[in-house]
Amino acid sequence: MTAAPAFEPAFARRMDRMKASEIRELLKLLERPGVISFAGGIPDPKLFPAEAAAEAYREALANPAAAAAALQYSVSEGYLPLRAWIGAHMAEQGVPADPDNIMITAGSQQGLDFLGKLLINPRDTVLTLAPTYLGALQAFSAYEPRYESIRPADGNRTPEALRQSAAAAGGRVKFAYFVPDFANPTGETLSLEARQNLLDLARELEASVVEDAAYRALRFSGEPLPSLQALDVAATGSLEASRVVYLGTFSKTVAPGLRVGWVCASKAMIAKLVLITQASELNVSIINQIVMQRIASRLHGDLIERAREHYRLKRDALLAALAAHMPAGVSWTRPEGGLFVWVTLPEGVDGAALLARSVEEVNVAFVPGGAFHPDGGGANTIRLSYSLPSPEAIREGVRRLASLL
Amino acid sequence: MTAAPAFEPAFARRMDRMKASEIRELLKLLERPGVISFAGGIPDPKLFPAEAAAEAYREALANPAAAAAALQYSVSEGYLPLRAWIGAHMAEQGVPADPDNIMITAGSQQGLDFLGKLLINPRDTVLTLAPTYLGALQAFSAYEPRYESIRPADGNRTPEALRQSAAAAGGRVKFAYFVPDFANPTGETLSLEARQNLLDLARELEASVVEDAAYRALRFSGEPLPSLQALDVAATGSLEASRVVYLGTFSKTVAPGLRVGWVCASKAMIAKLVLITQASELNVSIINQIVMQRIASRLHGDLIERAREHYRLKRDALLAALAAHMPAGVSWTRPEGGLFVWVTLPEGVDGAALLARSVEEVNVAFVPGGAFHPDGGGANTIRLSYSLPSPEAIREGVRRLASLL
Repeated sequence: MTAAPAFEPAFARRMDRMKASEIRELLKLLERPGVISFAGGIPDPKLFPAEAAAEAYREALANPAAAAAALQYSVSEGYLPLRAWIGAHMAEQGVPADPDNIMITAGSQQGLDFLGKLLINPRDTVLTLAPTYLGALQAFSAYEPRYESIRPADGNRTPEALRQSAAAAGGRVKFAYFVPDFANPTGETLSLEARQNLLDLARELEASVVEDAAYRALRFSGEPLPSLQALDVAATGSLEASRVVYLGTFSKTVAPGLRVGWVCASKAMIAKLVLITQASELNVSIINQIVMQRIASRLHGDLIERAREHYRLKRDALLAALAAHMPAGVSWTRPEGGLFVWVTLPEGVDGAALLARSVEEVNVAFVPGGAFHPDGGGANTIRLSYSLPSPEAIREGVRRLASLL
Repeated sequence: MTAAPAFEPAFARRMDRMKASEIRELLKLLERPGVISFAGGIPDPKLFPAEAAAEAYREALANPAAAAAALQYSVSEGYLPLRAWIGAHMAEQGVPADPDNIMITAGSQQGLDFLGKLLINPRDTVLTLAPTYLGALQAFSAYEPRYESIRPADGNRTPEALRQSAAAAGGRVKFAYFVPDFANPTGETLSLEARQNLLDLARELEASVVEDAAYRALRFSGEPLPSLQALDVAATGSLEASRVVYLGTFSKTVAPGLRVGWVCASKAMIAKLVLITQASELNVSIINQIVMQRIASRLHGDLIERAREHYRLKRDALLAALAAHMPAGVSWTRPEGGLFVWVTLPEGVDGAALLARSVEEVNVAFVPGGAFHPDGGGANTIRLSYSLPSPEAIREGVRRLASLL
């Protein structure tokens, strides 16, 4: 591969600030009347199971004994029936997990923070794809790692070279962070071969792999691929021997407002994360865990089915509109799931400058791709999310955006 | 004062383990049939406003627009109407806070974690009272401080001596952590003079003060004392100039199951904590914040009134039973609020050994005080919480316990 850009902590810190201010700017944009926004990466609230949630909260508080448990402190590892449900859900995907392999987190973002806290010493190395999910880098950066980008699809620097770079920086390669399915921001998916390459590399480096499965359930075309954790469990023979830590969430399939996600890992890893939870928020809101268990056990399959169909129509509308309206020299990814399409503009067209014009002249918002490239590349890329606008708004938005190019 | 015991990080780590295993043991004890437990420090679920919570959840999900907001992601600083309510609540206590002085946390325990993350570099010094709340030390210890105990009521080592110790350890005094009102584990309250001493010391050391107000609202006798933050705001003229960071919580006045607490501090401090929240769980469950705002704005005064009366009766029962049954040589604190009485047994009587006998012979549980003394002292102390048992059970439990002495 070509030389990997190394994200230095200073870049990561700069990014933190960018993200904070960027989010505020984006929120302001979303308040503009008539704006068509491809900026958010948040789920469509039309999909939220509001009635099922209302019913589950009602049940959780329906009698004094239930309310006494639902409103009290609880155990740091999480509500046992929810952990059991998630264990069975993981088993369906080839990871035989029992409840002691599961810890509940306040969304998978909290899992990222806790893994950074557990695994990273200052100057350790984290391997990632560039671009990748900014929120993960933001979580890890508090613990002062350096980042090195790898491309498991195209071949990598040798393990020895990575090990030496990490040692020269004063630490070691602690883990690789990947969103293998429909990644934020690109919408791209790691091939089976890339997954195997990544696991081989981690094995040779004796490093962990943090698998962020935020969008995994939202596949609406193509063949499902095994998770990194399922592949590693198959290779090593057991979850206890696996080096993969899997972060799941209900935020994209049920609703983010309850802040319920999970970590699935070896029992030894979960035991350490439970101590970290105990020293942080003690436990994820127990009433929300009870409610999520009720919703998931009743509706999870239906909700996923509905979300897939909903987002598939929107993705199709976006891809068709891009094909119909974008001039030559513009290319884009064709995601098989998730919420994002990644657009590459002709060389020399600046995504941030385009956003300024786009908001001003045609009332369309998106996220410039440079924000996801802490090494300074990607100026001519933009991220389009199709999760919130309707198919009609998507078509109109792309038509307007293309008119600027 | 006498030489201050310095808690070394190794002790803190040992404590973490003690607490984890201890909690499991205590939970097991609580499941024994017929046990009278003074062990828990958790609020009495009889006080939880279950119906008001059910009503508020129903309202939060009553129509599609409300549900779309209540189940979505939200801003990291927290729900504005709740921050406004808390700002007004702080103002009633002499701290003129506007919403930008407030950040919502997942209970005040999360505030402790985030403050450790923000303020502590390895080998920095944290000043505390010994014994103090173990969960705070557990939160801070992840960031590898050293601890030094001070006694603001009895005079302290000079600021210069503390500064030199901190420098010799390789850092500086970053903050003092105190629970000024009805502390866990002793139930004791810092006098006005001790509060002033503590603030003077912090000012001379240019250190922050972390005020953990977990039990502050639960005063049921004696005269209310101003919070450390109110005193410092009065002295410095503004919250922006104050060095006190105040941690509040609804866990002891409404219910812990929603995980809603807050930090009140200067806007500069809040802005930094918001970035930390953004890199951790993104935002505290928004539906829980909406529900808490509704409960607090409707019922907070009533709930506090009811809790004060409820716990006052239990404290009175405990103090009366101790006076009636305990043999000479046993002494105890007389808390004016909160949930705990701290009992000192005759020299040579070991609290941990007494617990073993007590559980075995008379079916009574409590927490041995040694657990709160990481420096190895306090073997002859025990913590009794009156929050969960009824007044009758309290009387019977003390009678049984005294029979062992």
